[in-house]
Amino acid sequence: MTLRKGDFILIDYVARVKETGEVFDTTIEETAKKERLYKEGEIYEPKLVVIGEGWVLKALDESLTTMEIDKKTSVEIPPEKAFGERDPEKVRRVPLRHLAAKGITPNLGMRIEYNGKMATVRTIGAGRVLLDFNPPLAGKTLVYEVTIQKKLKTIKEKISALIHRRIPVVEESKFKFTVREKAVTIEMPEEAFYLEGIQVAKRGIALDMQRFFPKITTVKFVETFKTEPKKETKT
Amino acid sequence: MTLRKGDFILIDYVARVKETGEVFDTTIEETAKKERLYKEGEIYEPKLVVIGEGWVLKALDESLTTMEIDKKTSVEIPPEKAFGERDPEKVRRVPLRHLAAKGITPNLGMRIEYNGKMATVRTIGAGRVLLDFNPPLAGKTLVYEVTIQKKLKTIKEKISALIHRRIPVVEESKFKFTVREKAVTIEMPEEAFYLEGIQVAKRGIALDMQRFFPKITTVKFVETFKTEPKKETKT
Repeated sequence: MTLRKGDFILIDYVARVKETGEVFDTTIEETAKKERLYKEGEIYEPKLVVIGEGWVLKALDESLTTMEIDKKTSVEIPPEKAFGERDPEKVRRVPLRHLAAKGITPNLGMRIEYNGKMATVRTIGAGRVLLDFNPPLAGKTLVYEVTIQKKLKTIKEKISALIHRRIPVVEESKFKFTVREKAVTIEMPEEAFYLEGIQVAKRGIALDMQRFFPKITTVKFVETFKTEPKKETKT
Repeated sequence: MTLRKGDFILIDYVARVKETGEVFDTTIEETAKKERLYKEGEIYEPKLVVIGEGWVLKALDESLTTMEIDKKTSVEIPPEKAFGERDPEKVRRVPLRHLAAKGITPNLGMRIEYNGKMATVRTIGAGRVLLDFNPPLAGKTLVYEVTIQKKLKTIKEKISALIHRRIPVVEESKFKFTVREKAVTIEMPEEAFYLEGIQVAKRGIALDMQRFFPKITTVKFVETFKTEPKKETKT
């Protein structure tokens, strides 16, 4: 099966720095835990990618059409196609007391905010620290080990995945929806009623529908509040 | 037409302190402006009251069933049925510098926060101020001049008013809804999609329906996102 631009796929990946082998990102919970990347509350699961949309690094996105489903593939991305080359000018020596004044006790490799910019602590000397304002992955060649788990084929699968992408904390299967020619009607599960940003997520889903299914002109969200009948009264 | 507990009515009122004639609350914009009570952003319009629900002071609520529609009626409410008697123990003299330390320059009659409680500045002396922690209307006899503008008769009128009560900033007529035996379906206008607290307002409306119309067991809210069709494709 050939993949092409516009295809909906679910991918798992492990992203490493080539030189050191250090894992800096992954969709796989077990790997995240093993590599001490795991964050409580984060959702580890195959990531929806619509090929060509730029939802992953461009170099990775472009290589997806050459991959096969279920077959682990490595993609090597040089710095200039990843986070850029390291700029030696972006390294500065600053007095330790400037950090102390902000309540920061620097450790090697620590990420700190300095004058509104993020920096990495590179060395700590007598009264001075070396701060590196380059992005942490600047100058690094990255290796993505990617497995395309699935290609989504039906409009139902695709819509379901688009909804899940905007509201990841609620189980995908809890969203029931119908597709009728030009209209999609989505029945929202109660768990999603009071999520922060839920209204903006709905708008995002509606815009996604327009983008990927131009025939759909109406997206309806339905929230149903059911109550226990208090007494049986004849209607 | 006799009014009774459970009736839905719309009332206008002007509330005064009996002794001074000072207006402290009203539903009428013109009066609010004349009395310098007017607040930008506040909505001045007849207030929905379901008689007996305690949505107004109890003494006022109880007198509503004796009133006639469209006939201005005065209700006098003694302090014990309004904001309570004044407690002379709740008055304290405090050093002016305590207020200065918090950046407060007191004026007579000003409301300030002091140690987490609201107080009224009563007198300002040499280095001291007298703070009154009684509610501003404690000890006052209140006079409500009430006009019942309308009694709501149909379930449609009542539901519409209940929706408006929870979402007052959007015009009442913009909410379209249908009532079908046990279910109410409310089509939300776009202006209401992103209001702060809109999801909690919906829950409130659903609970109101259950309370006042026990036969209704389902309340559906529908939000429709319409998009301009991007291209005419045959379905």
